[in-house]
Amino acid sequence: MSAPERLHGAFRLTSGRVEAFSDGVFAIAVTLLILNVQLPSSTAPGALPAALLHLWPSYATYAASFLTIGIMWLNHHGLFSRLARVDRWLAMLNLVLLMVIAFVPFPTAVLGSHIQAPADATAAGVFYSITMLLVAFGFSGVFVYVARHPELRAHGYATADFMSAGPWFLVGTLAYAACIPLAYLSPPLVVLVVAAVAVYYVFDRLPGPAQ
Amino acid sequence: MSAPERLHGAFRLTSGRVEAFSDGVFAIAVTLLILNVQLPSSTAPGALPAALLHLWPSYATYAASFLTIGIMWLNHHGLFSRLARVDRWLAMLNLVLLMVIAFVPFPTAVLGSHIQAPADATAAGVFYSITMLLVAFGFSGVFVYVARHPELRAHGYATADFMSAGPWFLVGTLAYAACIPLAYLSPPLVVLVVAAVAVYYVFDRLPGPAQ
Amino acid sequence: MSAPERLHGAFRLTSGRVEAFSDGVFAIAVTLLILNVQLPSSTAPGALPAALLHLWPSYATYAASFLTIGIMWLNHHGLFSRLARVDRWLAMLNLVLLMVIAFVPFPTAVLGSHIQAPADATAAGVFYSITMLLVAFGFSGVFVYVARHPELRAHGYATADFMSAGPWFLVGTLAYAACIPLAYLSPPLVVLVVAAVAVYYVFDRLPGPAQ
Amino acid sequence: MSAPERLHGAFRLTSGRVEAFSDGVFAIAVTLLILNVQLPSSTAPGALPAALLHLWPSYATYAASFLTIGIMWLNHHGLFSRLARVDRWLAMLNLVLLMVIAFVPFPTAVLGSHIQAPADATAAGVFYSITMLLVAFGFSGVFVYVARHPELRAHGYATADFMSAGPWFLVGTLAYAACIPLAYLSPPLVVLVVAAVAVYYVFDRLPGPAQ
Repeated sequence: MSAPERLHGAFRLTSGRVEAFSDGVFAIAVTLLILNVQLPSSTAPGALPAALLHLWPSYATYAASFLTIGIMWLNHHGLFSRLARVDRWLAMLNLVLLMVIAFVPFPTAVLGSHIQAPADATAAGVFYSITMLLVAFGFSGVFVYVARHPELRAHGYATADFMSAGPWFLVGTLAYAACIPLAYLSPPLVVLVVAAVAVYYVFDRLPGPAQ
Repeated sequence: MSAPERLHGAFRLTSGRVEAFSDGVFAIAVTLLILNVQLPSSTAPGALPAALLHLWPSYATYAASFLTIGIMWLNHHGLFSRLARVDRWLAMLNLVLLMVIAFVPFPTAVLGSHIQAPADATAAGVFYSITMLLVAFGFSGVFVYVARHPELRAHGYATADFMSAGPWFLVGTLAYAACIPLAYLSPPLVVLVVAAVAVYYVFDRLPGPAQ
Repeated sequence: MSAPERLHGAFRLTSGRVEAFSDGVFAIAVTLLILNVQLPSSTAPGALPAALLHLWPSYATYAASFLTIGIMWLNHHGLFSRLARVDRWLAMLNLVLLMVIAFVPFPTAVLGSHIQAPADATAAGVFYSITMLLVAFGFSGVFVYVARHPELRAHGYATADFMSAGPWFLVGTLAYAACIPLAYLSPPLVVLVVAAVAVYYVFDRLPGPAQ
Repeated sequence: MSAPERLHGAFRLTSGRVEAFSDGVFAIAVTLLILNVQLPSSTAPGALPAALLHLWPSYATYAASFLTIGIMWLNHHGLFSRLARVDRWLAMLNLVLLMVIAFVPFPTAVLGSHIQAPADATAAGVFYSITMLLVAFGFSGVFVYVARHPELRAHGYATADFMSAGPWFLVGTLAYAACIPLAYLSPPLVVLVVAAVAVYYVFDRLPGPAQ
């Protein structure tokens, strides 16, 4: 083994460490969402109850984004638990996914603060939907790479199994794409659809005793 | 085993990984609390000591929320250490609990900044109390699900033991519920009661040598 | 074993899990410090270089607090690696320590933004020094409890060894206490002393090959 | 073994724990970057799409800094996986590296918000480049220390291998240094170069099957 090869060997990545870093980013992104739920800098005396109620879009987008990232973490964990090792390309694709996940708090804040502004609600909804679509693309990138590289996987997991799971992942991608035109009809519906997609990804996985 | 079943098997969750993600959210939520302790954007020269003292409600709500989340983490850890595995429903219930925990910094900030405003202190206290009640419901959801699913637990833990712990959990739930009317009498008392409930949940667990 | 006892047994804490949660709080507190380094909301065109230089107190307090928390983490890790288990009282004392650690970003921000304000620099320095003193008390609380409870420690660590380390911990406590009057003479010196104490706690531990 | 020596033995650091703390700081620093992507506090009705597009420099600096920190994490992980233990000097050098990494969100925000301001873009670019250079110095400090202390490394890793990797690390350092004059020509090019250096550090490590 040449010196550079030995060095590369040293830089081999265990799936456990990549998961730990990813878990950190998922957990932080989800917890930072609350920083965007904020009262106006000053409210009239006695106006607090109204101001708190008026924030309902921020609560709704908080919940939709929290569930989306949280449940994607669940599936990310499920995917990586099938891996025996991680190569540099997969690490790079995973980093791109994390970069989009960590971006989610910004469009969440934008949608929460503009969904009641008639002139801007649609733009905020489109921005949010595009971000969710990028999240789906990011997850698909990781998924497809794992499906195509059996040498990274723990034994006993056939490529065919992975391919048969493809349609499941397509559901979310298509739903997020459909949210873009939906934002022209009703921005609040976008929030509902995103939350529904999140819940779908928990419960679609419950059918058998193998669970 | 069919392909979907094998895939579901791959998505089986270990309690260790769910705990690690939960630990992250608890630790971040608790540390973000400090971001809501802030000086007014400008103070007159020489007015800093008064401004720092004037922030006492923010310090008090910081402590009450920190202890509440920190000690709930302790009990969350205790509960999950009894588990052998986690299914999707439990993961979902846990995610809902984390969603409420991560929300706590917002009502904490609202209470800290309005407890001295006569017209709004009660509303802030009620909002804080309702959030704490939701936290208690979130924890109860996880607890009851674990109590009802012996197949998820490590061996040696009988359902009867879990059920007998029910009253302990009820104490906090009732105390938080009582904080809602208490907020009409005295919002600062709400902070005290919440902190006292947190401390109660540490020390009620110390009686025997089994500890 | 009665039902409550078995439950208590289940709630036994491993030092590993408490360390993991503590690590999270230390790592987050240290990373949040940067959020308090901020430019004035608007600067004149071309004034950016001056504005960046003008922030030197924020850089200095950032470094002092980062090193203090980072090196306290080092010693916290060293202390907990001697433990075989953690009881509820120790968990509570540790939580109080973490509560003070997580508070540090606030006085750091206050000192960074007021150290150049003649009328308020001393007050900011005193506030920062008191916080550091509380951090030292928090660490001492954990340390003394561990020293007095040999049953929590891994075998081979005698109480006498712990007691002989007492003076080391006293150095920091006394230095932080001395910072309070020092803030009346020179607030920037407070920052230097705090940074020096941090560095002291790394390098005092290097003498022997046992390291 | 004297009492102080036994105590020092207790304070021995495992590379695993130092990695865990470092992972936390890397993951948090990378996720905090999004907090600096912010809309102006108020926009005219209907102006949201323009405002979102106008933020492109913030998106670009977000991506460049995210990739830089994320890929440095990858290499940090690779480096520490070669270690059997960590001494206090290495812990200190690592803490200095983390202190610079955690600082990155600030110059990232400054560059994102000033790259379109003709009078200040160069200063912002220089500030960002200097920070990246400090990051490179921080990583080099850790790397050189590990290269010079074979007793810290896991068996089978020769010093010659480490030394032969030196030029790889020099590439980034020189590129960041070149960004300082580049900021006088074109601040946006600085962002591109920084992102390119990050990607270089992923893919330069892929040549052999040992990966």
